[in-house]
Amino acid sequence: MLKRLLDYNDGEEMDIVVLIKNLQLRHNKKDNLYLAMQFGDGSGEIRGNYWDANHQDTATFSTGTIVELNGKREEYQGRPQIRIYSLRVVGPQEGYELDQFVKSAPEPIDEMKKEINSFLAQVQNPTWKSIVEYLLKKWGKRFYDYPAGKSNHHAVRGGLAFHTLSMLRDAKGLADNYEQINRSLLYAGCIVHDMGKVLELSGPVATQYTAEGNLVGHLVLIDEQIMLAAQDLGIDLESEDLLLLRHMVLSHHGRFEYGSPKLPALLEAELLHRIDDLDAAVYAVTNALQHTPKGEFTEPLSSQENKRYYRPKNDPALDHSHHLE
Amino acid sequence: MLKRLLDYNDGEEMDIVVLIKNLQLRHNKKDNLYLAMQFGDGSGEIRGNYWDANHQDTATFSTGTIVELNGKREEYQGRPQIRIYSLRVVGPQEGYELDQFVKSAPEPIDEMKKEINSFLAQVQNPTWKSIVEYLLKKWGKRFYDYPAGKSNHHAVRGGLAFHTLSMLRDAKGLADNYEQINRSLLYAGCIVHDMGKVLELSGPVATQYTAEGNLVGHLVLIDEQIMLAAQDLGIDLESEDLLLLRHMVLSHHGRFEYGSPKLPALLEAELLHRIDDLDAAVYAVTNALQHTPKGEFTEPLSSQENKRYYRPKNDPALDHSHHLE
Amino acid sequence: MLKRLLDYNDGEEMDIVVLIKNLQLRHNKKDNLYLAMQFGDGSGEIRGNYWDANHQDTATFSTGTIVELNGKREEYQGRPQIRIYSLRVVGPQEGYELDQFVKSAPEPIDEMKKEINSFLAQVQNPTWKSIVEYLLKKWGKRFYDYPAGKSNHHAVRGGLAFHTLSMLRDAKGLADNYEQINRSLLYAGCIVHDMGKVLELSGPVATQYTAEGNLVGHLVLIDEQIMLAAQDLGIDLESEDLLLLRHMVLSHHGRFEYGSPKLPALLEAELLHRIDDLDAAVYAVTNALQHTPKGEFTEPLSSQENKRYYRPKNDPALDHSHHLE
Amino acid sequence: MLKRLLDYNDGEEMDIVVLIKNLQLRHNKKDNLYLAMQFGDGSGEIRGNYWDANHQDTATFSTGTIVELNGKREEYQGRPQIRIYSLRVVGPQEGYELDQFVKSAPEPIDEMKKEINSFLAQVQNPTWKSIVEYLLKKWGKRFYDYPAGKSNHHAVRGGLAFHTLSMLRDAKGLADNYEQINRSLLYAGCIVHDMGKVLELSGPVATQYTAEGNLVGHLVLIDEQIMLAAQDLGIDLESEDLLLLRHMVLSHHGRFEYGSPKLPALLEAELLHRIDDLDAAVYAVTNALQHTPKGEFTEPLSSQENKRYYRPKNDPALDHSHHLE
Amino acid sequence: MLKRLLDYNDGEEMDIVVLIKNLQLRHNKKDNLYLAMQFGDGSGEIRGNYWDANHQDTATFSTGTIVELNGKREEYQGRPQIRIYSLRVVGPQEGYELDQFVKSAPEPIDEMKKEINSFLAQVQNPTWKSIVEYLLKKWGKRFYDYPAGKSNHHAVRGGLAFHTLSMLRDAKGLADNYEQINRSLLYAGCIVHDMGKVLELSGPVATQYTAEGNLVGHLVLIDEQIMLAAQDLGIDLESEDLLLLRHMVLSHHGRFEYGSPKLPALLEAELLHRIDDLDAAVYAVTNALQHTPKGEFTEPLSSQENKRYYRPKNDPALDHSHHLE
Amino acid sequence: MLKRLLDYNDGEEMDIVVLIKNLQLRHNKKDNLYLAMQFGDGSGEIRGNYWDANHQDTATFSTGTIVELNGKREEYQGRPQIRIYSLRVVGPQEGYELDQFVKSAPEPIDEMKKEINSFLAQVQNPTWKSIVEYLLKKWGKRFYDYPAGKSNHHAVRGGLAFHTLSMLRDAKGLADNYEQINRSLLYAGCIVHDMGKVLELSGPVATQYTAEGNLVGHLVLIDEQIMLAAQDLGIDLESEDLLLLRHMVLSHHGRFEYGSPKLPALLEAELLHRIDDLDAAVYAVTNALQHTPKGEFTEPLSSQENKRYYRPKNDPALDHSHHLE
Repeated sequence: MLKRLLDYNDGEEMDIVVLIKNLQLRHNKKDNLYLAMQFGDGSGEIRGNYWDANHQDTATFSTGTIVELNGKREEYQGRPQIRIYSLRVVGPQEGYELDQFVKSAPEPIDEMKKEINSFLAQVQNPTWKSIVEYLLKKWGKRFYDYPAGKSNHHAVRGGLAFHTLSMLRDAKGLADNYEQINRSLLYAGCIVHDMGKVLELSGPVATQYTAEGNLVGHLVLIDEQIMLAAQDLGIDLESEDLLLLRHMVLSHHGRFEYGSPKLPALLEAELLHRIDDLDAAVYAVTNALQHTPKGEFTEPLSSQENKRYYRPKNDPALDHSHHLE
Repeated sequence: MLKRLLDYNDGEEMDIVVLIKNLQLRHNKKDNLYLAMQFGDGSGEIRGNYWDANHQDTATFSTGTIVELNGKREEYQGRPQIRIYSLRVVGPQEGYELDQFVKSAPEPIDEMKKEINSFLAQVQNPTWKSIVEYLLKKWGKRFYDYPAGKSNHHAVRGGLAFHTLSMLRDAKGLADNYEQINRSLLYAGCIVHDMGKVLELSGPVATQYTAEGNLVGHLVLIDEQIMLAAQDLGIDLESEDLLLLRHMVLSHHGRFEYGSPKLPALLEAELLHRIDDLDAAVYAVTNALQHTPKGEFTEPLSSQENKRYYRPKNDPALDHSHHLE
Repeated sequence: MLKRLLDYNDGEEMDIVVLIKNLQLRHNKKDNLYLAMQFGDGSGEIRGNYWDANHQDTATFSTGTIVELNGKREEYQGRPQIRIYSLRVVGPQEGYELDQFVKSAPEPIDEMKKEINSFLAQVQNPTWKSIVEYLLKKWGKRFYDYPAGKSNHHAVRGGLAFHTLSMLRDAKGLADNYEQINRSLLYAGCIVHDMGKVLELSGPVATQYTAEGNLVGHLVLIDEQIMLAAQDLGIDLESEDLLLLRHMVLSHHGRFEYGSPKLPALLEAELLHRIDDLDAAVYAVTNALQHTPKGEFTEPLSSQENKRYYRPKNDPALDHSHHLE
Repeated sequence: MLKRLLDYNDGEEMDIVVLIKNLQLRHNKKDNLYLAMQFGDGSGEIRGNYWDANHQDTATFSTGTIVELNGKREEYQGRPQIRIYSLRVVGPQEGYELDQFVKSAPEPIDEMKKEINSFLAQVQNPTWKSIVEYLLKKWGKRFYDYPAGKSNHHAVRGGLAFHTLSMLRDAKGLADNYEQINRSLLYAGCIVHDMGKVLELSGPVATQYTAEGNLVGHLVLIDEQIMLAAQDLGIDLESEDLLLLRHMVLSHHGRFEYGSPKLPALLEAELLHRIDDLDAAVYAVTNALQHTPKGEFTEPLSSQENKRYYRPKNDPALDHSHHLE
Repeated sequence: MLKRLLDYNDGEEMDIVVLIKNLQLRHNKKDNLYLAMQFGDGSGEIRGNYWDANHQDTATFSTGTIVELNGKREEYQGRPQIRIYSLRVVGPQEGYELDQFVKSAPEPIDEMKKEINSFLAQVQNPTWKSIVEYLLKKWGKRFYDYPAGKSNHHAVRGGLAFHTLSMLRDAKGLADNYEQINRSLLYAGCIVHDMGKVLELSGPVATQYTAEGNLVGHLVLIDEQIMLAAQDLGIDLESEDLLLLRHMVLSHHGRFEYGSPKLPALLEAELLHRIDDLDAAVYAVTNALQHTPKGEFTEPLSSQENKRYYRPKNDPALDHSHHLE
Repeated sequence: MLKRLLDYNDGEEMDIVVLIKNLQLRHNKKDNLYLAMQFGDGSGEIRGNYWDANHQDTATFSTGTIVELNGKREEYQGRPQIRIYSLRVVGPQEGYELDQFVKSAPEPIDEMKKEINSFLAQVQNPTWKSIVEYLLKKWGKRFYDYPAGKSNHHAVRGGLAFHTLSMLRDAKGLADNYEQINRSLLYAGCIVHDMGKVLELSGPVATQYTAEGNLVGHLVLIDEQIMLAAQDLGIDLESEDLLLLRHMVLSHHGRFEYGSPKLPALLEAELLHRIDDLDAAVYAVTNALQHTPKGEFTEPLSSQENKRYYRPKNDPALDHSHHLE
């Protein structure tokens, strides 16, 4: 198998095809132009500076260009970078596709789709079932393609669906323990809770927040979609069942300061929020620990209120787990 | 003119028609039943206990019953109450209507309607104009009838429209000072910002929060209505103008902890929030000062973070102002 | 089956054996002594006043006395109370035991013990296994007897073990979903995390905080026990395995303001905290919903940051669930 | 009209007279001295490095020196800078004055003075009128000269008076809407509320906080001045009118954490605080939006709790407004 | 020695002269008037109700009346009260003075004055010395008479001076340990820091906040007095020494939320704040512990962020200490 | 006496023996390796870059190496650095010891030991006395050697003992003023309160947090040691005296957010916390002021909630005090 960007070690030379994930024009102190770039493929990302660029270079290369990169990996100020020997634009006839250079969720999309559908099949309430089906039909293409977040570091193609599926599995464990949980409502809530991200984010590559994302947010965006769907499906806009599902998505951030206009006021809404938060924490902590030496602490994790986590010297489960990123 | 409930002084006897605003069954220590009541008419409210009630009484009287009250005003533990001599249900043939016993906003509804319409006439953007007109047509009856809040003490018939109009007047002052303000957007935002309360609250009498009010809230409720209106009116659901108006209503509480899913991110959204807050503060502080002796402080006002306000000994403007409640 | 204290309705007379859960001496305004009591049995608790008590009565009755109560259930100021006709101390020869009058956890202790032991059997690390076994041996009698909290409303005999077991079931669900979890550490942590409550609380009846509970707290109390156990078992006091288990118990409240001297810094410590919090929330919310009419909201729950929860009109899972209290 | 510093585009050469607003000596990695400078004139500011400075240069140039700058505008790391070709001190005989290089408020000082005086003429209470007149006489020269804040970016000559005037205009709008406002007190409070800044700040050029500013602050500084004025004017130091004005200035920051020793406890104090805050927000948000492309968000504004604001694609009022800075 | 109010036990009858500290008119449920009173003398305070009062009684008795009280001490709802047999106004010719009924600080005023003066003699800086002397001369009579706080429970005649002296003793201990402390500044700061309370409070009996106290506060009130004194003494109003002393008093609450307009920015200001806080805490905690049984916890202390403190079973120092109140 | 590292001025050349306190490998933009170093001796620390390092250099030099440094002091970007001419490893035969290059507390260790022992002699309670003696015997070597904190800037050999002693002196001052203080408990608490740092920190040179330090923390670490000591000494593990001492150490950070699992609930625990905090503040503020020019403010001090402190122009006590660092 071909070596990928992060498979090279310090000092090793490389000649590979990668994507320019980010590009900025700069001048050095001698007034010479250079291009500060971020390269990436499915294995991850590294920075590199293209020195002494001329004006043709600035026209040739930009964010989103697929290039053949010839260079060497080095360490600079404690972080890896590529010393660039040469850079060449890869033409469309060479057969590369943008999405080859984007990381994907750790489970195949088809299997995720199948498992999510099997959870959906257990939603018995007709209002919730029909709305979830409607929205999956309307937005499913994006839903199985988009990441769960904007940052390149957390963005993986299919991340939104993977996060959703992992939450459904947690939901099942809880519903098996607590008989009082309304399983249909909890499953329906899991499936649609973050679906507004298909409107909040720009897509799986070079992900940005859209204007709607910034001014309305994915909680209300999916609530609006639920209302429009209900109207289309002829569901009574004032029915309690519809109200419960709206509340599930509107309250799932669990705290006002995270943008929930209402706090969870259903047992299932309380659990939806907790499962969402727990699954994100497990992902972030695991990912950080997998990149931390044994017997040491991670860097402070901004997603975890800047807590640092310890990787035990002896921890077989973690040692044998698959790398998330 | 007939004396009303609050026109009587301590020790004075009365025989008037009032509304039972609230009624609770209780037993005293000797195991005798009594009815703890709150009476009210357009002048305000006072409590009174109906001692030694029998079971027929509990069937006869309830919250919302119009009664002829014969009794005497007294002070008990620093608060006024009515010593009840007798109580009689007023029959439908006697010509009283429920809404005679509810206080109204200090300006006539027709004049408020006229002035609000003149502000609406200054909204030039066709998207905002047509949506505001649509919503006023759909919900206007309630809009000019409902209070701006639940509590009996702040509830006045037409309070929602009065608050809206007062904000529009403030908005005009600011738009005259700052040329950079988009007057159309600010006026449109003022008119619809609290219109979701026609769904959040149960009505102008014995006002309660509805389930939708508690689980969705008036910010998102009116946002949903805007989307449904836009679809009905054939407005592009992804247009920026529509987005701006949605943002205005969704952010107008100004802080996450007050239930805004997004913070104001438009100059006009920032101002809408500030005018809303300022008008509510002026109302609450003025109302409290009008009931406080000169040279003393009000009680801590819960709506103002428990601050207490001082009524100067010499303050002609306040002394000559009309009582709000 | 015999009717119990909460099986009687308003106005119904009763003659049953109950426990005095709480007793206070008071004088009424005419300077007559009376006894303000709280009665209880396995079905719950109700208050009642014993009027015109003489000095012999104050010597006869006290908290913890088993009595035959003859009286009638009434409502006073919206809350049930017993009008006492007569009260008689039940003698030891009559065959009643204190613990008949204390509520118990919803699952039999022997089955809980068996299931907890089966989880313990899956703890493979010898340090954790031997310490957990040691502590269960030393404190097991109390562990399967004590409640999980002080208040009479939440106190159930065996509540500590029931909470522990429910968390272990949640832990299993998560460990099945996330391969990176160290199952041995998480299970060991669940079993001992609250065991310090056997020193923090006074016991299952009339539960109070001990001085140690107030001045040290159950997190550090169990940490101290772990250290003493380790010394007794000849375990290296500086071993990493010991350190990890100490960290699990010390950090399990998850926030400094809840008395954790350290925040969770292990993936398993993070999860232990979340499972603990989630299980307590499910219990509190479910218990409150089970006592709330359909279509209404619970009172604000102090354990849930004063949030109120809605009981849907149509919610079969909740409707068919067993009452917790 | 002559081109000013910010009138040049990237790549354009310039030969203009500017002020050195800030100068720091540094060595580069080869141990060569250079001068890091900030140049400015009435149009704004740009940085530039003077390479290979000798010791005579360090004696020649300093903060506050007026120089003839020959160089070229470039972009470096996303921010504009001047590549310096040569730098020459401008002699006193060349007719330049320091204050030519400081930006001024957008309205002429004489007109502002006239309008503020017309507001003062409406203050009818003799205590407030005489004190405000006294303070304007004592500190007026600085009052119409000083900025409203320290930072070079917000500092404009006359900014203090401009902010005061804009608030008076807002105050008028509110006083016209709410009859209960004491117009005299509100206007007097507006005029003096920030006048302590003439002691807190060092002046309109290269503005710094004074020691008094840091150790006492402008709220208490003006309160002290009011007391000294009152003594001079023979006003009763214990009169209520004097007390009300002192309270206005002491409470106008509205929150303890912003240095108000007392929270607003007068209706007019509440409004003074809100107008002050609103006018500052309008200025900061407008200024940021005017420097942001259409359809994009501003940077997080530190003065607005790091909120970012959106500039609509279609916003005629903003597009046609005059640039503040 | 005569028995005082708190020297009587439950059930004991009394006939003593006391002060009515507080009086409120109320009606009972049978519409009969009664007077709810708080009696006090130098030993403390107890409540009592005067039943079946007639209108002459309400004219005869009021807050501040000295009365002969004939009655019996009882316990009502866990708190002591007096059952009143009769009440008689004590005439001026009977030789009682109001201040006989107010508690005093635990050390004689003359000795406190002497010791404070000996500290003042160690203030060497002429600015601070002359200002402190000036203020002691102007306000000394009140300074040695007033309490340190409003509440009757903490109010003791001379409490302000006692608190000041205790702080000076603490200051001496610190100045002996840390050579870098400016002893003159710290002592001067201690003496004047709370002197503004002579304007903030109404006096040693029935202490209330004045309007100045509520609208300006004792920190700024004493700062104003320092400025007026400096002007009177011909001290340069812009001298650094004057500035340092102003900062000491303005910052001594240590936190914005406690009304300090500036935070401590001098080593001595930092210490002044800490000594102030520490001395108040020692007083409050000691006072509460002295009224708590051994082996138990105090009630939550509102002055200590609602913390509860434990009185050890064996604590000779506390057991032998003099009661503060 | 030999000149030390901080005795040289800008531009002065030096040839001295110092310790490499920190070393990092970096590449410059031309891909050349260099070593970024931090040098130090008992006088303080300065940075310097070793340019054009070869691979032998990277093997020769590392953190903790004692070297002969030949170079010149310069200023770079406002901070001092050393321009390195040459660097030579000092051999073991040259007679230098690591701890010559570490700063020490300002008082000799033997005198501190003597004075701490004299305080210990005043602890009369046998439980506290024997435990403190036991712990001083077990950990005394480290206790008199370790710093009080991790950072190189605050770390001084013997800093832990110096901080402890200074607190004991403060404690004496307070115990002399307040008779109700249990002097034995306060002194015992002072001596052991931070002793857990001998387990939390790695030692006096290149101090780091240990894993135990991060996962348990010095409060609980010393609590565990107290329990183990008590068991060893045959002290009743449930005695109140033992409980009080445990509470002293567990609560001494005074706030949950600083890692105290319990808040101070003894008068002496309250004081221990306050003395600890006060002594740290005096040290930090004094140290910062000693490095600040007269008439200026320190940088914001992170240990003091980012407050800045003013150094008066005229402050003899501070001017004549000995430099702490």
